[in-house]
Amino acid sequence: MLEQMYEKKTKNLHFIVLLVSFIDVFVVCSHYFLQLNLCKPSKNKGFCIILANRKKTLAMKQILTLLIGFFILFSCNNVKKGAPEVKKEVNKSEKIANTFGIVIHGGAGTILKKNMSDSLEIAYTSKLKEAITTGHSILNNGGTSLEAVTATINIMEDSPLFNSGKGAVFTHDETNELDASIMDGATLNAGAVAGVTHIKNPINLALEVMNNSPHVLLAGEGAEQFARQQGFEMMDPSYFYTEKRYQSLLRVKEREMREQYKSISFEDSFIKDSKFGTVGCVALDKNGNLAAGTSTGGMTNKRWNRIGDSPIIGAGTYANNATCAVSSTGWGEYFIRAMVAHDISAMMEYKGISLQEAAKEVIQNKVPALGGDGGIVAIDKDGNIAMEFNTAGMYRAHMNAKGELIIKIYKE
Amino acid sequence: MLEQMYEKKTKNLHFIVLLVSFIDVFVVCSHYFLQLNLCKPSKNKGFCIILANRKKTLAMKQILTLLIGFFILFSCNNVKKGAPEVKKEVNKSEKIANTFGIVIHGGAGTILKKNMSDSLEIAYTSKLKEAITTGHSILNNGGTSLEAVTATINIMEDSPLFNSGKGAVFTHDETNELDASIMDGATLNAGAVAGVTHIKNPINLALEVMNNSPHVLLAGEGAEQFARQQGFEMMDPSYFYTEKRYQSLLRVKEREMREQYKSISFEDSFIKDSKFGTVGCVALDKNGNLAAGTSTGGMTNKRWNRIGDSPIIGAGTYANNATCAVSSTGWGEYFIRAMVAHDISAMMEYKGISLQEAAKEVIQNKVPALGGDGGIVAIDKDGNIAMEFNTAGMYRAHMNAKGELIIKIYKE
Repeated sequence: MLEQMYEKKTKNLHFIVLLVSFIDVFVVCSHYFLQLNLCKPSKNKGFCIILANRKKTLAMKQILTLLIGFFILFSCNNVKKGAPEVKKEVNKSEKIANTFGIVIHGGAGTILKKNMSDSLEIAYTSKLKEAITTGHSILNNGGTSLEAVTATINIMEDSPLFNSGKGAVFTHDETNELDASIMDGATLNAGAVAGVTHIKNPINLALEVMNNSPHVLLAGEGAEQFARQQGFEMMDPSYFYTEKRYQSLLRVKEREMREQYKSISFEDSFIKDSKFGTVGCVALDKNGNLAAGTSTGGMTNKRWNRIGDSPIIGAGTYANNATCAVSSTGWGEYFIRAMVAHDISAMMEYKGISLQEAAKEVIQNKVPALGGDGGIVAIDKDGNIAMEFNTAGMYRAHMNAKGELIIKIYKE
Repeated sequence: MLEQMYEKKTKNLHFIVLLVSFIDVFVVCSHYFLQLNLCKPSKNKGFCIILANRKKTLAMKQILTLLIGFFILFSCNNVKKGAPEVKKEVNKSEKIANTFGIVIHGGAGTILKKNMSDSLEIAYTSKLKEAITTGHSILNNGGTSLEAVTATINIMEDSPLFNSGKGAVFTHDETNELDASIMDGATLNAGAVAGVTHIKNPINLALEVMNNSPHVLLAGEGAEQFARQQGFEMMDPSYFYTEKRYQSLLRVKEREMREQYKSISFEDSFIKDSKFGTVGCVALDKNGNLAAGTSTGGMTNKRWNRIGDSPIIGAGTYANNATCAVSSTGWGEYFIRAMVAHDISAMMEYKGISLQEAAKEVIQNKVPALGGDGGIVAIDKDGNIAMEFNTAGMYRAHMNAKGELIIKIYKE
């Protein structure tokens, strides 16, 4: 940022400097020209007229040169003003080479203070705190980012507050179909499952797919067959039942009965919010390895074994040690079409912009341009973070190497 | 490219110019300094010593100034040399604005001349020709790229020669599970299906998901329920039976019985090739709209409802009018992890490199670095094409606006 600002200012300086240099070249050349007696002052025509006017040119140069002097002084002032900022950044990145950090989300949507009871707000805040401090302590004790991401997501999956694991929304057929994915930034290895109905912690199964199968993405019954083979406990589907989510489904269905399926198109903010939700976590460990994970129940009233962005590497989840780790939450179809997670990484890698700039561009411009909404949490290889969303709120938390904790719900 | 080169060269010039300007500032300032009698030449200490040496400074400046002169002359020469190249590119893109084109693939793998009978080679070549000329004539008659992609892929899906539709490979459970996806570069809209078992032309169902559902990706039975609702014919699974593919499955299974599952890891080139295969098509229509589509039976002996890259937007298929349209074929897991199709587009968009350069970087460097193999076909918004693969061969064909046809199988 500072570099860009400085570049802009120096452009003007460069122009004047270049002008002076051209005059210099002219003056020096004319000096030799006169010495070679090619132009006699008396000749006074063509190029020789210009040579004869060297004094005027020199006067002009003196003015321009003084201008440069002022300009340089002015620029130095600016650099000085900027200097502490640069220094801070350098220090930060030096310090950050041995740093770590973790960021989580619990879904984005029309989350407004006025619709939230105090007790519910406390419940969300304390569960976010429990989740992030668990992951943070793993990182602090030298654990890997994959371990931190998995353990952190497990806590949110086990809470009925979030749309993942216990608390997952209901499909049209009144089942709970869970999706999850995880990616290792060090190896670009990845694992994902879609539409599983008996797995308590889908993120663990995604990790199992990554570590112990030759595949990246397994779906439905096949994924559960793999889970059984790997010794995963099969939950009774009733485990996933929560009264709140079931009532949401009934309300959405009732509305659907009244109106054309397509016309509801999520214009009702209650329905819209009950439709979405995800949990996600990104982490940078002490070895500089990034990881990202996402887990969800998908969309209320979803049918036809719809798969959203959460189990799609590059859309819902992406991690690459060269750039950043990203976990998405929002209207999955748009996040797939915009390739949200990979696009943020690609912008950093190929455009050389910061994580914050890339996240802003994708979430505030690209996704809304398609008609979608939602948000992301991300952390880059230097520990810089982004918690970007274009909805009214996003359950989110961040904890850095110093143990400083930020928990937020609403837009600020 | 040229701009970058020019920027690099001018950086050196800027440095010398800046140096000269500093000397200028010094000389002019010292002039006034002396006039104000602050430094008497006799004082000869500190700053005054430097002032006293003005003559030496001026000599140095003269040398530097002449250097600038040469540098400017040299830079001008370089810009002139680069100029025709820029002009050519401008002409090319002007000419291509009204063009169209189509590229297809029928899978990549260890396809060697020595293993191919003449009759089989003729069968492949004529089917590729039939497919691409169908799409080309749609484009030539003003049809959309989406129409061309769908019709072209249909012909390959209906041929037992390719691993898609009729001719799809068998899963471990001796079924045929088909995947397909399609993307519209004009709207970034996309549709995909995974693991369908009764759909003759999965690419048509992917198109239906894109056009007539609020979703992007539907899987398994749910996708077929949607298909029935939309009036798709349900094929008896026996339609997909081909003796050749069934024998492949038996051979892979036999080998699996003999060895550990993991240890086979595709090191046998026959098994490896029978495992993969895809068909795909990318097209640019006369309105400048890009589209990409991919259809496959996946991997021989696949289990656990494995989903490969073909139905994954950004991995197997991607189209964006701002950049290019890409269809992938190869070892799906690696193509997902490398986000092959979207990465090529992102490199073009953010790095400003050509389609050919981006395709080469991803297929020849990035995918092999992970351990994967395969290839892509792609066409950019100006009609430039890429048919890049890192295997021994790839069934492929290209046809441009003039009707010039290229059909190739082996590496050259």
